[in-house]
Order: sequence, then C-alpha cells, then structure tokens
Amino acid sequence: MAEQTPPKNELTRLRGRIKRLRKKLRRAQAAPKALGISPLAPAGFPQLPIIQGVRFAAGAAEIKYTGRNDVSLVEIADGSSVAGSFTTSLTRSASVLDCETKLATLLKKKTKGPIGLVVNSGNANAFTGSAGDGSVEAISQATAKILGTDAGQIFTSSTGVIGEPLPHDKIVGILEEMSATLSENAAEASARAIMTTDTFAKGAAAEFILDGRTVKIAGYAKGSGMIAPDMATMLVYIFTDAAISPAVLQKIVSTNTDTSFNSITVDGDTSTSDTLLVFATGAAGNAEIKSTTSKAAKLFAAELHGVMLDLAKQVVRDGEGATKFIEVEVTGAGSDAAARKVGMSIANSPLVKTAFAGEDPNWGRVVMAVGKSGEKADRDSLTIHFGDILVAEKGWVAESYREEDGVAYMKGSELKLSVDLGIGKGSGTVWTCDLTHGYIQINADYRS
Amino acid sequence: MAEQTPPKNELTRLRGRIKRLRKKLRRAQAAPKALGISPLAPAGFPQLPIIQGVRFAAGAAEIKYTGRNDVSLVEIADGSSVAGSFTTSLTRSASVLDCETKLATLLKKKTKGPIGLVVNSGNANAFTGSAGDGSVEAISQATAKILGTDAGQIFTSSTGVIGEPLPHDKIVGILEEMSATLSENAAEASARAIMTTDTFAKGAAAEFILDGRTVKIAGYAKGSGMIAPDMATMLVYIFTDAAISPAVLQKIVSTNTDTSFNSITVDGDTSTSDTLLVFATGAAGNAEIKSTTSKAAKLFAAELHGVMLDLAKQVVRDGEGATKFIEVEVTGAGSDAAARKVGMSIANSPLVKTAFAGEDPNWGRVVMAVGKSGEKADRDSLTIHFGDILVAEKGWVAESYREEDGVAYMKGSELKLSVDLGIGKGSGTVWTCDLTHGYIQINADYRS
Repeated sequence: MAEQTPPKNELTRLRGRIKRLRKKLRRAQAAPKALGISPLAPAGFPQLPIIQGVRFAAGAAEIKYTGRNDVSLVEIADGSSVAGSFTTSLTRSASVLDCETKLATLLKKKTKGPIGLVVNSGNANAFTGSAGDGSVEAISQATAKILGTDAGQIFTSSTGVIGEPLPHDKIVGILEEMSATLSENAAEASARAIMTTDTFAKGAAAEFILDGRTVKIAGYAKGSGMIAPDMATMLVYIFTDAAISPAVLQKIVSTNTDTSFNSITVDGDTSTSDTLLVFATGAAGNAEIKSTTSKAAKLFAAELHGVMLDLAKQVVRDGEGATKFIEVEVTGAGSDAAARKVGMSIANSPLVKTAFAGEDPNWGRVVMAVGKSGEKADRDSLTIHFGDILVAEKGWVAESYREEDGVAYMKGSELKLSVDLGIGKGSGTVWTCDLTHGYIQINADYRS
Repeated sequence: MAEQTPPKNELTRLRGRIKRLRKKLRRAQAAPKALGISPLAPAGFPQLPIIQGVRFAAGAAEIKYTGRNDVSLVEIADGSSVAGSFTTSLTRSASVLDCETKLATLLKKKTKGPIGLVVNSGNANAFTGSAGDGSVEAISQATAKILGTDAGQIFTSSTGVIGEPLPHDKIVGILEEMSATLSENAAEASARAIMTTDTFAKGAAAEFILDGRTVKIAGYAKGSGMIAPDMATMLVYIFTDAAISPAVLQKIVSTNTDTSFNSITVDGDTSTSDTLLVFATGAAGNAEIKSTTSKAAKLFAAELHGVMLDLAKQVVRDGEGATKFIEVEVTGAGSDAAARKVGMSIANSPLVKTAFAGEDPNWGRVVMAVGKSGEKADRDSLTIHFGDILVAEKGWVAESYREEDGVAYMKGSELKLSVDLGIGKGSGTVWTCDLTHGYIQINADYRS
C-alpha cells in the first residue's frame, strides 16, 4: 500500500485537489444562505439580577415561528411606576398608540393592581387597520383578567410581519398557562421570545447603592435584524426595584433616550413600532425619588443611562451585515444638538459607511457628510481623527498623516472617528455600523 | 506524441483543469474590476444643436487620467446672461465659492468681453485649503488673458480626487492650444472631457419658437458614479441662444432646480462641488425676456425645465450599481413641499431601495418611509400603487391585490411608485434608483 506507483498517487492527489477547489468555487460563487451570529456580538447573554416585584414567562403561540417561544408575559407589582419612549413615526402601530395613551393616564394616577406586559414576535400588527386596535384590546382584556388587574395597565408590543392581521386568539389562548409559570428568574427567556431576525439576545444590568440600599436595574432589547417584509423594530424593556415617582422616571427616560437609543443608527430608517418601557417597583426601599435635581435622581439617571446605552450599542452590533462597530464623536459644534446632527449625518451617509466597509480611511467623505448636515461648519476649521491618528486639520490633510497608518487602523472591527468642527463647545457621540454586501443580501436578496 | 501513456495524459489534463479552476476561483473571489455601462443608459449621446455664440474645446492635461481629454474650455459671447445653482453643502469647494461670487456680480452689471468656462476632471480641488483658492485664481487669470476678457467672467469647476492640490499649471499650460480649437460643434467633446466615473455621457436639447424666432437649448452633465476617494459630484452646463435678462434667467433656473436636480437622489449624499450654470447668448433674436410672468418667460422656463429634467434623470440612470429607474409620485399631501419631502424620504430609504433591488413589492417599507418623513400623514388614509396596481388603501392591503401581480411588476427596470396621503392637495415627484451589490462594490470594495 505504501509503495504505489508515483503517477497513480499523483492522480489521487490531483483529483482530491480538484474536489476541494470545486467545493471552494461553489462556496465563492453562491451567496451565503444565512448569516450567522454577528461578528460584533458580545460574548454571551449577561446574568441579569432578580428585580423584586417583576416576574417573567415565555410561551409558544406559533404565530409565525415554530419550535420556539414567541410570546413574553411580564407582571410588575402593584404600586410600580412606568415610563416610556416611542417611535416618532407618523404611521405608528396600534400597540404604540395604545401604550402612549395608557402611559399618559398612569403618569397621573396610582396603579390598581399589577402592570402587565405582553410582547409577541412573528407579526407586527402594523398597517392592519381597525383590526389592529381590536387585537390590542383583546390581548389587554384577557391579560388583565388573568393577572387580576385593569386592562388600562396592560402594555403590548408586536414585532414581525406587517400588513397581516394578528392572530391574537393564539396569544390569548396560552396566557393562562404562561401565567402559571411566571418567575423572577425568567428574564432571559422573555428576551429570547421577542427576537425576530436578531442574531443574538441583548441584555444589560446595573447594581448600585442608594440611601444605603442596593438598587438593581435589568433590561433586554431586540433589534435590528430585518428580513422582508419585516421592518427594523427596536423593542426595549427595562426593570428596576428603585423607588421613583412616575413623573421623574419619565423625565429621566426621555432625557436618556436622546443620548442612547436616539444616538444610534443602522440605516437611518425608522420603524413604526419602536418602543421603550421602563418599570420601577420601589422594592429596593430607597426614599422615593421625587425630584430630577436630587443627588439620588442623578445617580439613578446615570446608572439607567449606562444600561440603556449598553443595550443601544448591542442593537448596532447586530446591524444587518455589520462588520465594524463605529463610534462617531463630534466636538467643537455650535451646540450639543448640532453636534449630534452632524454625527448622524456622518453615521447615516452611505458613502461613509461603505468606506468603513472597504477599510478605506476616506476622510473626504467625512467632510462631505459634515457639509450636508445643514449645521454650521467651516471647511477650514475641521479636524478629523481616525482613532488617535490625526488625519486632517485646517482644511487640508495633516502633514504628519501617512496613508498606511489610516489603512492599518481601519482593519480593526471597533473604530472611532472624531470630528472637531472648531467653531463652538457643543459635543455629541453617535454609534453606527458599516454598510456591507451583507445588508443588501438580507434586505434585497431574500424574498418574503 | 499522440500515444502517450494514459496516466501521463490524465495528469496533464487534471493539471490543466486545476489551472482553470484556480483562475475561475480567483475571479469569483475578486470583486469585478470595472462595471460596464449602466443598464439604464439611453441609446447614445444626442445630437446637440449649435448654439450661436458658444464655442467648445477639449484638451488633455493628464491631471489624473491619461489617454483621454480631462479639460473643457467654453467661450460664451460678450453680452450673454448667466445664472446658476450650487450645492447647499457647508463645506463647498473653492470653485463653487468663486462661481457664487462672480455670478452675484454679473447679475448686476453687463459683461465686458466673453464669458469663459473651464472644467477639469481628475482632481476636485476640494478640501485643499488656501491653495485651492490660488488654483482657481491662476486658472481664471490665464483664461481671461487668452480669451481677452476679465478674470471676473471666468467660471471654473473641478471634479475628481479630493484633498490633493490641483496641479493647475498643467491646465494653464494647455489653454492656449485649446483656445485655437474652439468650435461651435464640439459640445460632445466637452461633455466627455468632464466625465469621471460616469458610465455614459449625458446630453439633452430643445428647440422651440419664440417671437417667430427659433430658440435652441443644449446642455450636458456629469454624475454620479463615485470611486473612493472621489465624491458624487454633479456638474451641469446648459447653453441657449435665447435673449433673456440675467435676473429673470436666475429666477427661472432657481425655480426649475427644485423640480429637477433637487428632486433626484442616488444615495442622499451631497457633494461639495455640485454646480449648475446656464448661459444665454441672445443670438436667437427674440425680444429680450425681462419679466418672469410674461408668456415668453413661461414658455422658455418650461423648455429649459425639460432639458434640466432630462439631464437629472440621466444622472439617476447612472447611479452606482443601479438596475432600476424609479419614479416616486406623492399626491394628497398638505403642500407640494411636503409631498416632495415624503417622496425623498421614500427615495432615500435603504430599506425601500433594497426592496426594489430584490424585486420585492414591499409596501410595508413604503409605509415606514412615509412615517419617518416628519410630514403629516395618516396611516389609515394612505393609498399605494405600484405602477397601475392598487396595493394598499385605507390602512390595509387592498382586497383586489394579488402578490403575484406586484412581483411581476417589480421585474421591470422602469418602475413607478405612487403614494396618495389622502389629506390635502399637495403633490410632487422625485426620481431615484435601487440600492444593489453594485453600489457596495463601487464604494466599498474598491480601494483608492
């Protein structure tokens, strides 16, 4: 066996080589049929702390997916505060409109019984006419009955296919069974039940001391994978045992949203269903936070912001086809708002995003994006850094800049772009990802 | 020779096969090195009429390209009117700033000698600091001397690489020679000299009767192919023999720009160099148009608009990677401006553009884009057509709609999307193309 004639041995070797080459060729010619977990995903889902007064359950209604949970039920104890932030879309879904109405009422009066949260994946209940409102009402009524509370305290979200009526009976049909499994330990199961085309589950948490009491925050999110005809929907739910008034919680949530979820962008498109809800049970036993200017409010706001920003960045890391996570920092602007607008103009520019995808330190495209933002800028005052590398200053490429340094920097997957406008003291940071063939593949090549 | 032993023959065959397979593999793995002419290109460059008083020349300064012309010189007779429209970017290039200043002066006083126009491709003279201003000045002075006119009457544009000093000596060095070849017949050569990554030259013309005189309009444009680190720059030059005052010409050009060049979008990015200049020699001999409300002004405005819109659509047809030409018509809006804003929100949405690329009649993404436009809209009043097919109405998919009809329609390359907001009488139309792998290829895969 060991002594075959050379030609035969060689033939076998060459035939093996041909087989391997043909396999490689097929792989190179075919578009990948599925994208795996985002290369920018964190190591795993974090261990979320138990939030006293909050219980989770997940169930399978088989709305669209089979063999997995697609409904999440959460019960939040009576006496809790709730606040929220929603899509600014003018074609908002039935659930979003319903949440906004209920939230406005709960800001003014005490809860009577627990608060309920029902979220389903597989169907967005969006652009479904008056039937959509009926589905929200049916789920709210059924959940209120099971949890022994008022339907005005049941919040719902839906994410998935749009334009198809939501088969809400399927959801209503499993609520009783789900309620029997409600547990303080099941946050991760809820986080996974609301995923659609997310490539990983997103969670974040914080623990800190307030008035000598340990306060905990735990949250999860879904977004922003999209497959036609679904839309980018970001759903975020955060729970804390802090004692805080609804009005102060709402103010903090609104302020924090600007510098977290409103400072990220994948493709500049806005879902009709984006929802953020924050629930505070008060079980931590701290003195209730009643003023936004108190020291306790500031500490709580900062900790909550940390959780919100962490979740927001994870959404970017799951951007369709993303291979680079990009932080865009704008300083020297006329105001903080102007800085964020310039940052968004850069972060949403297809030319900038494709340059990052191509690992091209193309500062010219950054200048273009600054110019089109509509905010005050002076060509000859601009300073641009890629990471720590000074690329351009005073209207021209920096003398010290060497193209090979820029090229080497762009090969990383965690990148920072800093732009100083040189005209004021405003600053802001936004986060985005690159625009790749993967994005086109997910959104154009796949048909529903 | 013919009777080699089978093993040796087989070895040769297999080695040849491996060689061919490796070549195929390299080709499949590599991004194509050049994209051909856009599949949406018109049949060819049109025959442009001679405009009395306007002479063209093209020359090769070898600024970046070799073996082709890269400079265009145009001389427009003394006594002509000139008007323009420029990028709104706040990081405008030196040429644009210079054109704006000169135009403002010429609006108020008569010309003294001919007007000159010098345009180069290969280098955009953008973000080149004060050196950029010096280059514009040097070219203006040299051209004025050669044409026997004032430097304040020389307009310049540059398109190509940014951030590199323009070697203006190369341009100045060939001006004398070029001026000797000035001809009324050479408009197409000028159109071709200013191309960068355009896949075809763009020209349009009109002829009509005014006061019993034949008036002619001829124009050409370049845009919007882009290869890093170049930027999307749209340059448009239009010439007419109509007699019209500078002030009226400027008003007509500004109004027409909104519904032509400002109603197209490829990727929503804005160049630092976009320039439109219109020159009117008066040689046609019509009574000079001095009022925008006159019948003659309205006829001229309509004919000029036709040429502008034709060129604007050609720019869209040359959008990077474009495979579909898409007209987006919005009706029933609160105002015409609102309609155009909603149209632009749809036309710039990456999700809508990738749906078109994937031939997916995804009206859900259209609803999303309407919602994010920021303009007034009511989810339950929306009506959407793809071509003549009613897709959605009153907040839901139309009863008569069959998905296979939508799918069949989307296979065409010239598509129309109509959205009626159902709340007012405002209307507007914008034009765009789809977002494909070709766009990513051009803007990400190629490195400078």
